[in-house]
Order: sequence, then structure tokens, then C-alpha cells
Amino acid sequence: MNIELTINEIKSLKDNQLSTNHNILEQHSRGEDYYLPKLPDAVFFANTTSDIQEVIKICAKNKTPVTAFGSGTSLEGHVLPSKGGITIDLSNMKKILEVNADDLDCRVESGVNRILLNDNLKDKGLFFPVDPGASEASIGGMTATNASGTNAVRYGTMKNNVLGLTVVMADGSIINTGGRAKKSSAGYDLTKLFIGSEGTLGIITEIQLKLFGIPESISSAVCHFDTLEGAVNTSIEIVQYGLSVARIELIDEVQMAASIEYSKLKDIEIKPTLFFEFHGTKNSTTEQAQIAEEISKNNGGQNFKWAQKTEERNLLWKARHDAYYAALAIAPNKRAMSTDVCVPISKLAECIIESQKDLKENNVIAPMVGHVGDGNFHILMLCDPNNQNEMDMLKKINDRLVKRALEMGGTCTGEHGIGFGKKEYLKLEHPTLIEWMQKIKKDFDPNNILNPEKIIKFPE
Amino acid sequence: MNIELTINEIKSLKDNQLSTNHNILEQHSRGEDYYLPKLPDAVFFANTTSDIQEVIKICAKNKTPVTAFGSGTSLEGHVLPSKGGITIDLSNMKKILEVNADDLDCRVESGVNRILLNDNLKDKGLFFPVDPGASEASIGGMTATNASGTNAVRYGTMKNNVLGLTVVMADGSIINTGGRAKKSSAGYDLTKLFIGSEGTLGIITEIQLKLFGIPESISSAVCHFDTLEGAVNTSIEIVQYGLSVARIELIDEVQMAASIEYSKLKDIEIKPTLFFEFHGTKNSTTEQAQIAEEISKNNGGQNFKWAQKTEERNLLWKARHDAYYAALAIAPNKRAMSTDVCVPISKLAECIIESQKDLKENNVIAPMVGHVGDGNFHILMLCDPNNQNEMDMLKKINDRLVKRALEMGGTCTGEHGIGFGKKEYLKLEHPTLIEWMQKIKKDFDPNNILNPEKIIKFPE
Repeated sequence: MNIELTINEIKSLKDNQLSTNHNILEQHSRGEDYYLPKLPDAVFFANTTSDIQEVIKICAKNKTPVTAFGSGTSLEGHVLPSKGGITIDLSNMKKILEVNADDLDCRVESGVNRILLNDNLKDKGLFFPVDPGASEASIGGMTATNASGTNAVRYGTMKNNVLGLTVVMADGSIINTGGRAKKSSAGYDLTKLFIGSEGTLGIITEIQLKLFGIPESISSAVCHFDTLEGAVNTSIEIVQYGLSVARIELIDEVQMAASIEYSKLKDIEIKPTLFFEFHGTKNSTTEQAQIAEEISKNNGGQNFKWAQKTEERNLLWKARHDAYYAALAIAPNKRAMSTDVCVPISKLAECIIESQKDLKENNVIAPMVGHVGDGNFHILMLCDPNNQNEMDMLKKINDRLVKRALEMGGTCTGEHGIGFGKKEYLKLEHPTLIEWMQKIKKDFDPNNILNPEKIIKFPE
Repeated sequence: MNIELTINEIKSLKDNQLSTNHNILEQHSRGEDYYLPKLPDAVFFANTTSDIQEVIKICAKNKTPVTAFGSGTSLEGHVLPSKGGITIDLSNMKKILEVNADDLDCRVESGVNRILLNDNLKDKGLFFPVDPGASEASIGGMTATNASGTNAVRYGTMKNNVLGLTVVMADGSIINTGGRAKKSSAGYDLTKLFIGSEGTLGIITEIQLKLFGIPESISSAVCHFDTLEGAVNTSIEIVQYGLSVARIELIDEVQMAASIEYSKLKDIEIKPTLFFEFHGTKNSTTEQAQIAEEISKNNGGQNFKWAQKTEERNLLWKARHDAYYAALAIAPNKRAMSTDVCVPISKLAECIIESQKDLKENNVIAPMVGHVGDGNFHILMLCDPNNQNEMDMLKKINDRLVKRALEMGGTCTGEHGIGFGKKEYLKLEHPTLIEWMQKIKKDFDPNNILNPEKIIKFPE
């Protein structure tokens, strides 16, 4: 790797898109995670797929590491350029290339985020459902990590909602995967291979997405519980009942306190709480909500409360999306280590309760939120990455949690990805798969220039 | 390849599971397609994953081709052992290994078919939705081809319903992909890579499946139209309306005539027809059906007729599933070439009508059925594989149809797969992907023993 040469060659082609300014490098030294930052050698601001192609060709020639950077909201060190090199920032690539309203699909550049996309779609009566906590998360980054969010219980994850991709490969070639058909059996599914590949197999520059019609009727509800068990059991029963709920989110009392403070929520109690949303016709949402209310009551739910006005509903979900930032605001100088296990729904109560016990035994106060309809929850453990003792203790809690989830048939990551920090857990979860993933990595990126040190160790 | 050696080595281990009986070889010489048959050298009847491991190890050592055979219902030559060798028949592997009713998942061996599975699940109030035409299609084969069927518009294809796999690789190692969590971002998605890989990357022996609760209320309806356009436009409008219909199937008048005859359907007319099914609560299915009826009437639909009794409904869907066999019964000595394009829904009417015109111009009478909610339809062109002129003419019709669909942004195969016959169309559809698929194939199966000559050319 000759980074000087790479920088000079890129400059000679696209001088005004390359920066080595220290502030810029610092902004690209980490995501929203707890890993110690590392500066890239330079940041390239891409405007087009062919920009990226040119830069990758130079990096390939000089064996310079390349890290793709969407909006930097990831939580497992994906955008941390652990071996330096060039970070390619895609945030300028914000074009919505086409919207096919009749076919319920669209094509966007990687830098588009869901707020921008949904603002654009609203007039057409359409929306894109996948909604990770970070509203600014780019669609490219969401694809690279197989993100999901609060709507996944009804609408699925990125894997269910991406139809095709444009990707720049490690050798600089450009490929187009998938298409616009709603289903296809045409060969190996490379689209799904790139979803969740975290920038290690290629750089995603365009995404074809499925869209949905905005439901005729949307209603939300909030329900408090005296115990976490009551709230968790409600969500389990609702899923097992087969109720087609659009969102069912658990917020524990530590997080409720943080969110009430941060998001200025009113008329809401500091108790374990479920947020619901129902999509459909007016009749069907009413019917769904009645069933949900009944199941909640049977599990000790109190004051099943409607948020029928759009503003009231938006406030609620904005608060839910801001949970991570509300949690961080508890201790402004700290970072957060977010756990991300996902377990079969019948094990969810046990998994959460065991984990809460572990936190208590170690005197850790950590907010918890959960996409409980999917069996996925996050404990946001506030930490000082420079405090080794604290970090060791929290990592042990996470370690026990991951192993608990794996024993239950679950996964170490429901939606955040492996990145830097979960490589050892990937080996535990999929011991027979690592060598095959390594083969794919080596084939697609023989010089290991694409986001090295993420997901798996490069096979030597 | 030394086939004698391979046969002797397998015999010395598992004599009673290997057959070279001519009738057995003949039964494993083709699927339900129109390709000229080819006999394998021997058929191995597997009882367990480790049986398959042992056989594959022998074949790997001797570089003997291996073709996996589920129930032989595939339509693109997938099970045709084009280079001879050992066919591994998985039809004895019929164990339902576990059913986790609370988690809505189960694990089955590859030889289980959906009828067996659903019979087993009924008492638990559960069902598995993916239902290709061939009721005896094995879950393993359905996974290998990414099958779908009439329910896909609501419940998705195999890709949406498989959580994990056990696979025997070309070197005889056994891997376990995925898990029981409803979502995961743990590394490259090898589960999805094997779905649709048609036995070319590994042999699938166990499958973890998502299940669904049997809906509280199911209702079906049949509606006749004077014109094909009316029926197609109805389905397009229903999808665009966002109606959560469970099934919406088009049957043209040629197929209706065949099905009335073959399935002894009563009170049904020989006209372009839509079959509907609605799943939900009693109120919601009534509401959905009313909307569907209204949209049908606006497009010239007549006698929107309910099939509310279970028996009446089952008869209807049995007839739909038997459509392929009803079509074959028109000319008992012929085979069928089934087209399988899938296009964006806004192009569906144009694609179907152009294709019907092409058939008419060539004096071909061919039944048509369509999973029109997905934009996928099949023209069943009856043919005599030994009549070269007829085959050439029909292949040209299919060629024009595929190219028409690709120009519309569609795919050459919605659910049948590439197999033997669509390799050239895969290149047309995904020109930039072939080399990357070849890299994966070469990595996973370096000696090209697994179902050689299917999907892609092995890279020399």
C-alpha cells in the first residue's frame, strides 16, 4: 500500500472531491459506536457511481484500503477505517432516480435517507417501511448492514425490501443485480449476498426498493405495564395470535424516563411500555387494536391509550426513534454499547429477564428497547471507551447475553451487523460457515482492500 | 471420472441403497419438463444427511457427477443428470424433525412435501404457505429452485420462508446456515445463496421453515370475464390498491376448458377467470372480498361467486394446482414447455396480450395460468420433444416472450429456475453477474461434480 501515490492519483483526477482536512478525517473516524476512532488517510466525496469506479481502480492498483461511509450511524464499527486508506463518503449521492408508483418500486442512490425518500413519496400515497433508529441512516448503509427497525414485524427487513443493486466491485467493475420483477429464480441471489456484506464485497451505489401504499387507516396506541414480563408476554401472545400488527415496540422504564426527558413526552408514565401501530382499513385497524387491547389487559396492561391524531402519533414514533439519543443524553460524555440479540419469540421473556438480572447484579443502569415482535431487543450500555475496567465489565455482560441468545437458537445480531466487534460471535454462531464466507470474500476482493477487518478475518 | 469405481465404493458401504435397475434409472432421467431424458449411472436412496456425506465424499474423490433428486417435478431440467453419474434421491428423507408451534417455525428433511407437512401442522392450527403447482414437490427441491406458487402474493417465496439449512458441500463437509431467529445480520447470507442454487453449490438435506397460523377466516371467490384484459386489469388494480389478498390467480379460457374437463368442475364457465382467496378475521375477509368484487365489476367481471364451504374451496384450489396436469391431458402423448416470465405489474397486461397474439399468429393453442398478483404467468405449450420443427417454433415463441419480459424490466424465471434450458437467458438478464456466479461455483465445487451444466457454464 502506497497511500501517497493513491492520494496523488485521485487528486489528479478529482482534486475537489478529496479531502485530507483533519476535521473531515475525524468525522469519518467512527460511527455512533463505542470503538476507539481511527482516521482515514483521506476522504473522497463521491457524486456518481463512475466516480467510485475511478477511485476503486486506483485503490485496487495500489492495494489501498477503501471504507464506504453513508451517514456514519452504524453501531458495530463498520465505518471505522481500521487500516486507514481512503474513505468514500456517499452522502452527496442523494438522487431519487425513479419512482414507479404503479409498480410500487423506486430506485435511489445510496446516500438517500428514509426521511428524504418518504417525504418525496408522500404525495404519491406511497412509503418505504424500513426505519432503523437513526433517521439519517442512508439507504446504502441500511442495505450494507441489512437494517430493519420498528416496522419489520409487518414489512420485513432490507432483505425483504431490496429488489436490486448497482455495486462497484473491488476490481472497479460495475455490476447490476436483481431487477424490477417482484420475484425471480434467476441464478444465485447476489442481491441478498450484498445485503449485510458491510462494504466488504463491493460498494453499493444504487438500490431498487419495494414500496407500499400508505394505509387508508393508521392508528397507534401506548400501554403501560407494572412489570416487564407483562409487556413482553403481551407481545409474544400478539405474535402467536397472528395479529398483523405493523409495529410493537417495548420500552423499559429506564428508557421511558430518558425519552420523557429528551423528547418532552406528556401524559406518559415511567413504566415498562408497549408502543403499537396498526395499518389497514378503518375497520381492520379498529379490530386489530381491540384484540391487542384485550391481550394487553390480560397481561396487566393499563390505560391502553390511543394516539389517533397524526401529530400525536408522529411525536410518539419520533420519541421511539430518538431512544438511542435520549439514552446517550443521560450521560453526555459517554458513548453507548448497544446489544442486538434476536431470539425465537418463546424465549424472549426469559432472555430479557436474565439479562436484566445480570445488569442489576453488576449495578449497571442501562435503558432497553425492543422490536419485540421479532424477538429482537437492545440494551444501551453507556460507557467510557477509555475506562478499561468498565469496558471489560460491560463486554462480559454482552458476552453472556450473546451466549444466552445463541443457546436459545437466536443470533448475535438482529439488525446492526457484525462489523468490528462481533467477529468472534459470528464464529460461535456459524462455526461451519466462516471458511465459505472467506472463500467468497477472497474471490470478490482478492487483495482485501474493501473494508478490511470487518465480518471475517481475511484468509491468508 | 471412474463411475465403476464410484459405484463399487458406494455399494461396499451401502449396497441396499444403491440401484442400477433400468426402471429406477429411467424414473430419474428427467423432471416434468420437455427435455430429452438421460439416465444416471446409478441412483442412491439416501436416508440421512450422513448417508449423503459418505456418498459425496466418494464422488468427490472420483470426480463423479452428483444430481440431487427430490420428487422430480421440476420444469427446467434440474434433475436431468446430463453428465450421468450418481443421482441422490432424497424422497425417503421425510422426517418432520421439530415443530415449534409457539415460535411459528419447524425443521424438516428435504424429502417432505407440503401436503405431508400441512397435514401434520393442521392440528396445531398452523400451515406452511408456499405451494407450487406440483403438490408432491419436495421442500428440498422447492428450496433449491426458490419455488413459490399461488400464496406468494401474500406470504412470499421460499426466500421469504426459509430460516436456515443443513447442506452437504461438494467436499463432503456439512454446514448449517441461518437459525431460528426471525431476522439476523450475521455475516454473508449463505441461506439465501443456496435457495435457488439448484443443487449446484451443495445438497440441501434439512430446512428450517417459517410457519403461519391458519387464518380465523378464509374465503374464496371465482369471477369470470369476457376478456383477458378485464381479468388482468382487475388483478393489477387490486395489487395497486394495496389489498392484502392471499391469492389471485388468472386462468385463461383454454386452461378453464382443460380444468373443467380434468377436475370435473361444475357451475363454472369457459371464460378468462380469476380465482381469489382472502385470509384474516371474518370482518376483514368480508371487507377485502367486497373491495375485490367492486374492482372486478368495474373491469367487466361477472358473477363474482363465493366458495365459502371448505370442500368447495379445496376443490377449486385442487383444480388450480392440477392445471399443469389438466393441460397435459389435452394431448396425452405430449410434454409441456412452460414459460415462466415475471414482469412489473404495470407491464403485465401488455406482456400477456402480446404473447397471446404471438401464439395466435403461430396457430398454437396453449393454456395459460398466472400468479398475476406477482406479475408472473405460465403459458403451457404442449409439444413433442422429438418433433424438431415444432420444438423450434415453440422455442422461438418462448424466446420472444423472454426478451419482451426482460425489456419490461422483468425476469426470465419467476419461480421455475434456470436449470438446463434458461442458461442463455440468464446471461441476457444478468450480463454483469455471470463471472461472479462462476467464481462462487468454482469455490464451492472446484471439480464441478454438483449438478454440472445447470445455471451457468463451469469456468475452465
